[in-house]
Amino acid sequence: MKRRSIPPAMLLFAGAVTLTRPIVLAADDVLTRVAAHAERFGALSRQIWENPELGYHEDRSSGLLQQELRVNGFTVKDHLAGAPTAFTAEWGSGKPIIGIMGEFDALPGLSQQDIPTPSPVKKGAPGHACGHNLLGSASALAAVAIKEEMQARGLKGTIRYYGTPAEEGGGGKIYMIHAGLFADADAVLGWHPGDSNRVNLGSNLANNGGLFRFYGVASHAAAGPERGRSALDGVMIMLNAVEMLREHVPQETRMHYIITNGGAAPNVVPAFAEVNLIARHPDMDTLNAVWERIMKCAQAGALASETRMEFEQGTNYTSILPNDVLTDVLSRAMQKAGGYQFSADERQFAAELQKTLGASVEERPGPDKLITDKSTPQGVASSDAGDVSWNVPLGHFTTATFAPGVGAHTWQAAACAGSAIGRKGMVVAARTLALGAIDLFEHPDEVQAARAAFEKRKAGRTWKTRVPPNGKPPLDYAMRGQSDKS
Amino acid sequence: MKRRSIPPAMLLFAGAVTLTRPIVLAADDVLTRVAAHAERFGALSRQIWENPELGYHEDRSSGLLQQELRVNGFTVKDHLAGAPTAFTAEWGSGKPIIGIMGEFDALPGLSQQDIPTPSPVKKGAPGHACGHNLLGSASALAAVAIKEEMQARGLKGTIRYYGTPAEEGGGGKIYMIHAGLFADADAVLGWHPGDSNRVNLGSNLANNGGLFRFYGVASHAAAGPERGRSALDGVMIMLNAVEMLREHVPQETRMHYIITNGGAAPNVVPAFAEVNLIARHPDMDTLNAVWERIMKCAQAGALASETRMEFEQGTNYTSILPNDVLTDVLSRAMQKAGGYQFSADERQFAAELQKTLGASVEERPGPDKLITDKSTPQGVASSDAGDVSWNVPLGHFTTATFAPGVGAHTWQAAACAGSAIGRKGMVVAARTLALGAIDLFEHPDEVQAARAAFEKRKAGRTWKTRVPPNGKPPLDYAMRGQSDKS
Amino acid sequence: MKRRSIPPAMLLFAGAVTLTRPIVLAADDVLTRVAAHAERFGALSRQIWENPELGYHEDRSSGLLQQELRVNGFTVKDHLAGAPTAFTAEWGSGKPIIGIMGEFDALPGLSQQDIPTPSPVKKGAPGHACGHNLLGSASALAAVAIKEEMQARGLKGTIRYYGTPAEEGGGGKIYMIHAGLFADADAVLGWHPGDSNRVNLGSNLANNGGLFRFYGVASHAAAGPERGRSALDGVMIMLNAVEMLREHVPQETRMHYIITNGGAAPNVVPAFAEVNLIARHPDMDTLNAVWERIMKCAQAGALASETRMEFEQGTNYTSILPNDVLTDVLSRAMQKAGGYQFSADERQFAAELQKTLGASVEERPGPDKLITDKSTPQGVASSDAGDVSWNVPLGHFTTATFAPGVGAHTWQAAACAGSAIGRKGMVVAARTLALGAIDLFEHPDEVQAARAAFEKRKAGRTWKTRVPPNGKPPLDYAMRGQSDKS
Amino acid sequence: MKRRSIPPAMLLFAGAVTLTRPIVLAADDVLTRVAAHAERFGALSRQIWENPELGYHEDRSSGLLQQELRVNGFTVKDHLAGAPTAFTAEWGSGKPIIGIMGEFDALPGLSQQDIPTPSPVKKGAPGHACGHNLLGSASALAAVAIKEEMQARGLKGTIRYYGTPAEEGGGGKIYMIHAGLFADADAVLGWHPGDSNRVNLGSNLANNGGLFRFYGVASHAAAGPERGRSALDGVMIMLNAVEMLREHVPQETRMHYIITNGGAAPNVVPAFAEVNLIARHPDMDTLNAVWERIMKCAQAGALASETRMEFEQGTNYTSILPNDVLTDVLSRAMQKAGGYQFSADERQFAAELQKTLGASVEERPGPDKLITDKSTPQGVASSDAGDVSWNVPLGHFTTATFAPGVGAHTWQAAACAGSAIGRKGMVVAARTLALGAIDLFEHPDEVQAARAAFEKRKAGRTWKTRVPPNGKPPLDYAMRGQSDKS
Repeated sequence: MKRRSIPPAMLLFAGAVTLTRPIVLAADDVLTRVAAHAERFGALSRQIWENPELGYHEDRSSGLLQQELRVNGFTVKDHLAGAPTAFTAEWGSGKPIIGIMGEFDALPGLSQQDIPTPSPVKKGAPGHACGHNLLGSASALAAVAIKEEMQARGLKGTIRYYGTPAEEGGGGKIYMIHAGLFADADAVLGWHPGDSNRVNLGSNLANNGGLFRFYGVASHAAAGPERGRSALDGVMIMLNAVEMLREHVPQETRMHYIITNGGAAPNVVPAFAEVNLIARHPDMDTLNAVWERIMKCAQAGALASETRMEFEQGTNYTSILPNDVLTDVLSRAMQKAGGYQFSADERQFAAELQKTLGASVEERPGPDKLITDKSTPQGVASSDAGDVSWNVPLGHFTTATFAPGVGAHTWQAAACAGSAIGRKGMVVAARTLALGAIDLFEHPDEVQAARAAFEKRKAGRTWKTRVPPNGKPPLDYAMRGQSDKS
Repeated sequence: MKRRSIPPAMLLFAGAVTLTRPIVLAADDVLTRVAAHAERFGALSRQIWENPELGYHEDRSSGLLQQELRVNGFTVKDHLAGAPTAFTAEWGSGKPIIGIMGEFDALPGLSQQDIPTPSPVKKGAPGHACGHNLLGSASALAAVAIKEEMQARGLKGTIRYYGTPAEEGGGGKIYMIHAGLFADADAVLGWHPGDSNRVNLGSNLANNGGLFRFYGVASHAAAGPERGRSALDGVMIMLNAVEMLREHVPQETRMHYIITNGGAAPNVVPAFAEVNLIARHPDMDTLNAVWERIMKCAQAGALASETRMEFEQGTNYTSILPNDVLTDVLSRAMQKAGGYQFSADERQFAAELQKTLGASVEERPGPDKLITDKSTPQGVASSDAGDVSWNVPLGHFTTATFAPGVGAHTWQAAACAGSAIGRKGMVVAARTLALGAIDLFEHPDEVQAARAAFEKRKAGRTWKTRVPPNGKPPLDYAMRGQSDKS
Repeated sequence: MKRRSIPPAMLLFAGAVTLTRPIVLAADDVLTRVAAHAERFGALSRQIWENPELGYHEDRSSGLLQQELRVNGFTVKDHLAGAPTAFTAEWGSGKPIIGIMGEFDALPGLSQQDIPTPSPVKKGAPGHACGHNLLGSASALAAVAIKEEMQARGLKGTIRYYGTPAEEGGGGKIYMIHAGLFADADAVLGWHPGDSNRVNLGSNLANNGGLFRFYGVASHAAAGPERGRSALDGVMIMLNAVEMLREHVPQETRMHYIITNGGAAPNVVPAFAEVNLIARHPDMDTLNAVWERIMKCAQAGALASETRMEFEQGTNYTSILPNDVLTDVLSRAMQKAGGYQFSADERQFAAELQKTLGASVEERPGPDKLITDKSTPQGVASSDAGDVSWNVPLGHFTTATFAPGVGAHTWQAAACAGSAIGRKGMVVAARTLALGAIDLFEHPDEVQAARAAFEKRKAGRTWKTRVPPNGKPPLDYAMRGQSDKS
Repeated sequence: MKRRSIPPAMLLFAGAVTLTRPIVLAADDVLTRVAAHAERFGALSRQIWENPELGYHEDRSSGLLQQELRVNGFTVKDHLAGAPTAFTAEWGSGKPIIGIMGEFDALPGLSQQDIPTPSPVKKGAPGHACGHNLLGSASALAAVAIKEEMQARGLKGTIRYYGTPAEEGGGGKIYMIHAGLFADADAVLGWHPGDSNRVNLGSNLANNGGLFRFYGVASHAAAGPERGRSALDGVMIMLNAVEMLREHVPQETRMHYIITNGGAAPNVVPAFAEVNLIARHPDMDTLNAVWERIMKCAQAGALASETRMEFEQGTNYTSILPNDVLTDVLSRAMQKAGGYQFSADERQFAAELQKTLGASVEERPGPDKLITDKSTPQGVASSDAGDVSWNVPLGHFTTATFAPGVGAHTWQAAACAGSAIGRKGMVVAARTLALGAIDLFEHPDEVQAARAAFEKRKAGRTWKTRVPPNGKPPLDYAMRGQSDKS
């Protein structure tokens, strides 16, 4: 009976993924298990959506997920890596250890009701405009289904849920890597809410950012400007130089900034000024070379204005290292999992949202499409999932939780994340994760192949991060208006 | 008896003022009257100091002054010119009408105890760092003494106290001018707290300022920077142009600014950015010509960045038009009024404050010195008293309410304004005002001469202001972090 | 016998061009004819190389080509389109009219001997660093061979040589288009010297440029800077704004400039300053939109500095509209024409040149490789051949006239253009052109198909240029240090 | 008889110079001698005016002056201090040694006929727009008259003419100081053409300047901008920073610049760019402090753009140290010397020139006025006479060689310098110099007093220059478009 409610897999296999072996039909069982829990985890996602919490302060969100996983037999370790809301939840024992990642932090200022017009629940409050309420819940739903399937079939190994806080700029996963929590994992699966169902070899942008603080000498701006040294001059000289730098970096580079403090009073030479700048590039090594030049621009600003510059490290995320084998595994899984159809109400909701988007969205694929291929699209966002991908084989995909054309970090995304659309897309994610993980537990050779593919892509390079190994997570970063990641 | 406590007038007559007639000894009576009320009004100044209120929100300060003047027989009109705290208090009738101005607003963020170490009463709270608690109180003290003297001697005319709110950027006096409250006045006397006792023909700086708001188009700074139009670019193009303008304006010009909004998030092309800029020059016409060019810089910023610029008028104060006759009157009055000596405690207090000043202050004259001359020093601050001076003959001076070397708008000034030093300097001011006003009531020809001197200095020019005649005072300006004046 | 000296066609057919019909063997005859004239035209190319002439001043170079074509029975029309060195040379009559384009202008300052070390013939003098000495000569060689082949086989139609001057920034072809000289052509073939033999569907960059002249008011910079209006300020405000624009245009955009006049004397406020700026983008419509914004930056510079700005239109080249059918024709022709092998001396020469290049060039294909495919590489240069391609079906390719890795506009290219390598590559070009043109004369349906493909690619868009239809060519542009094109 | 032709001394003694002793009537003799030679030296000034020569290339001008002085019995030493056109001419022996300075270099690009409309003799050629043709000739005329008077009266001591080349930026006097040529002088007198006759205690501006050269890495601006490092970016970052510096230096500071090289071709990332910048301030120590900050701006430009910056020292002139005693001597001398009246033609000529000046000049004093006082006007030009004044007591004045209102370095000044007006003003100068020098020879105590006044003004400070003591004069500076001084 339940199976009827599961959307049928798409027959059309888009792209060029070569299926090396037939899909194992027994995996259907795990889909049944996902279906059995879907409603409860959907409600959980809504609960988190209704109480959006900023990075490192996801106390209630993290707690709800931990509780659900405990109830289902998982062993939870919390307060990990110096972060109160970081946790792992495990079931099983021994190898292989397969991880599934869940995020649950919200974004500042993006509060939104679940309606297709811009309307915050509370103005200026956080909102789930990146759909992490769905992310954490779908991954937990998958974990529970996988555990039941492993248990039922006596599959060997460990399923581990990674509760990773503060993805939006706080870099929770990086602290968890430093704490060794990914060291023994054999493969990790992750997903992200999106406007379509996709598996491919795409990557995203490595980023680096932080606060450039300039310290000058205050003076009355009319009575003694020559006695002052303007910190804002330092900022402007730096930024003028950064603008000129744009011509001389690879064109895929991004450098963007705001002035977070531009002086205290117009009649006082500013003694303090501050820039929040993020740079990005698909390749971390290239980005690091660009970053050195940005740093020189900042130093030049201080030199020329006779001010002092201090840099506080902020975001630093590596771009995703795609895994060829896990992309195959997840492509097969998604084809098996299938997409979904909008109901009449959902279609109406999506159409109204799309009307609020500037550009035409007619050509975007709907939630019934499954776009699994070996293309290498260049994503334009950044995520600490990239850092995980350099430490352990990572498989990654998106599902259609947002109306076609809706981008992350918008009020439209926040509306979808609290709606039926979001919850349907979340089930596609859970089904794909569950099928993929069971596939790996069933085929240890695939786990080994994923490791080999991982090493091949790394090609001798090692993961580097500017986040210090012994550092404490910046628990209050989200309250300071500091950088967020995407 | 009481007269003993009055500091003797300085014998040394500094400067080059030519006394055209002997000082009228009968005026001594008004000094006795000042002395009789000095302690009560000193306590009033302390009360206002303990409850510092920002511009247009000086409800309690204004109320206390009104009450004291009412009690002393003045007729008070309040809620004038659209400002709840603007008032006049009159006694007598007919011509001449001699005005005495009082201010009572505090400065944001300059809370300070009456001790010689930086120590706010409440961090971030307002404070009387410009000594307006003394200003309003001394003027009221003088008004009461003058009224008593007029009454005793049957002098003809009207003494009018102007309770002028929001001098620190709100331009209260300008709205009172627009409301016609200075139209029938024959002469107005004013003073300002300072670090020495001085009467001269100096002026200050005309100023003009406001908020330049740039409106662009937001876009994800990594995913679609080419779809965004950066309001911060508009700001930076404007400000780069303003910097280049510096070479090509008269060297006495001042242009200073802060960036009050430099974008919301580093990963979003800023849709809004804002500059608060003030320009100044000794001459308003020159300043107006410079201002047109600043406006072009702002328009250029919008043009080049494809953003929209809106300007919100802020501060606009004319520089003081000195009055040769009233300067003579006040010079004589101050020489008669005399300065004061520090007590041992006060000397100690002043010395400790001076230690906190960067530069040497040894050579600054003490409170016993009376520096009355016809010099034309160029002040570096701005005040809406300048606007009054273009509408009615204005006489103006400073007294030593701050320790020598202490400048306005500092914690040191706030400390002095609450101390015995401040109250002693306030009495010098009240004595000078009282002697000056009585002199004018006694000598109608002097009032006429002051008018003639006024017309001569104006030389056919008329007062202009950017504050619209029908405008409502910006009652909340001080809460918006907008410009203050000095 | 002669055929032995002809390099054999490469058997390896690189890429994915689909051959729809077998290569016509009779075309071999035209290769014999090319070979018969190759030495003489090679000597002609050397003669032009030894006397490098700048755009619109190629009197001797143009004359030599005209003479050779006249001698071979072509009817020459010279002094066309207002340009003394523009000409056409025709043979035959009626349709189809197949054009072959030849250029012959040199580049300023790139004088170089035919040796692998940087050594100008005359320092600062022009040089053939773009290989146009080969370009014009190979095209003429092909035209002669084609004429002979048409004559021999009685092929119907007209072969027309376009002698197009001043490609390096002067836009000779655009004036020839305006003069109607391309209006009746059915197809045009062209080529360009390069470091490899390639036919594909690639395009290049549309460009637009010119001189931004700012006029201010001079004044003694120490005695009266406030009376001056700095034209250099106008330039700097404009350029600062252009730098900020970089973030907000498509990343493939290029904007580059020099300051051609930055003031006359350091003690005088500059009354004149000038910028030479070129912008580029693969798509002319996108470029035009960007250009409007550059113009706003310039206007903003004038507005903010109170100077006047005048723009003088310079370079404006459209990007190439590829022709699918002519690409097929030329791919087949090049495969038939074949590449060539370096002799031992040439290999040595090439190797020494390559050592002077910064980057590794090991992986670049040699002159024996023929890379014909349907790829769409994005070229990074610009040419007025692009404008031709929007008016008539244009087929285009490169041959290996430069050592692998050598780029145009370098002393290394100038050295190759005068060497045996250059002349061998020139013969590959002539063979390809000759085979292609004969193919078209033999197959009128192909000419029709080329026209259809042309219309399809245009998709209703029409050619637009900023060069006015009635304008006179800027005959002295190359003497004024103005923009060159690539 | 001759005395009739001498303009009568002005009776009106303007200003506040206190005459400590009566004017010695015998000095009239020297005026007779001046008159005797005036016509010949006037013709000499015209000869130099007709052959304007740039700094260090005044071969003919210097030669003519040397010849005239030799003929009159002076001993000439030429080719001094490494400069072919520097010389001294002496007569007499022993102490005191009184110097008189003469300049004779022209300004580039200021060729002008002796008519009141802008009309170069030869467009772009040099011209005597600073009147140095008069300067050198009047000083020589005075020297000859002084020698005759000394001879006639048996006055002890040495009269020495300093032929100082390249005042317009080449700093000839500084090299002559370094060569020890001023070491034994007791006092030096100098003058400069102007629009009025003035002696006072004024000074001028110290200056410092030079070339900031930036070296980057060239790259094709469309094909590989990211491989280039733009030298022009270095320049613009530096200059943007200099613009911001303006707010934070004393308002009397001047900083002005041109971009002498802004890149070679718009399609190449500039590998070289150059700024010529001069800064000035009345006080050399203040200027030196500002200069360090300008240097930081330049270093910041290099740092931020990853280019290399080299600085080549140019102009460095100290401001004049006034000498109170020599000012007295020259005031008396000028009052004795007298001014002159315009003839009807000269008045007409002056009036037509004045019409070409923007501002009203009605109130400027005419050539009959003698303005001798102890005022301290702040001059806005710079001169290497300033450096002399720090090494030996220097007396300095101007005479009315230009029509009232005409400033130096204009075509109007060049016209006057070749006209009768110029020659009349030149005679006033020669008379003043002659009277002054004879006064000093007659009164050795005055020479001693001048030395004492010199030491008092120096107040322990010593002359410093950035021109190295062993350096060779920059003989070709004027051909390189480098800085000129004024």
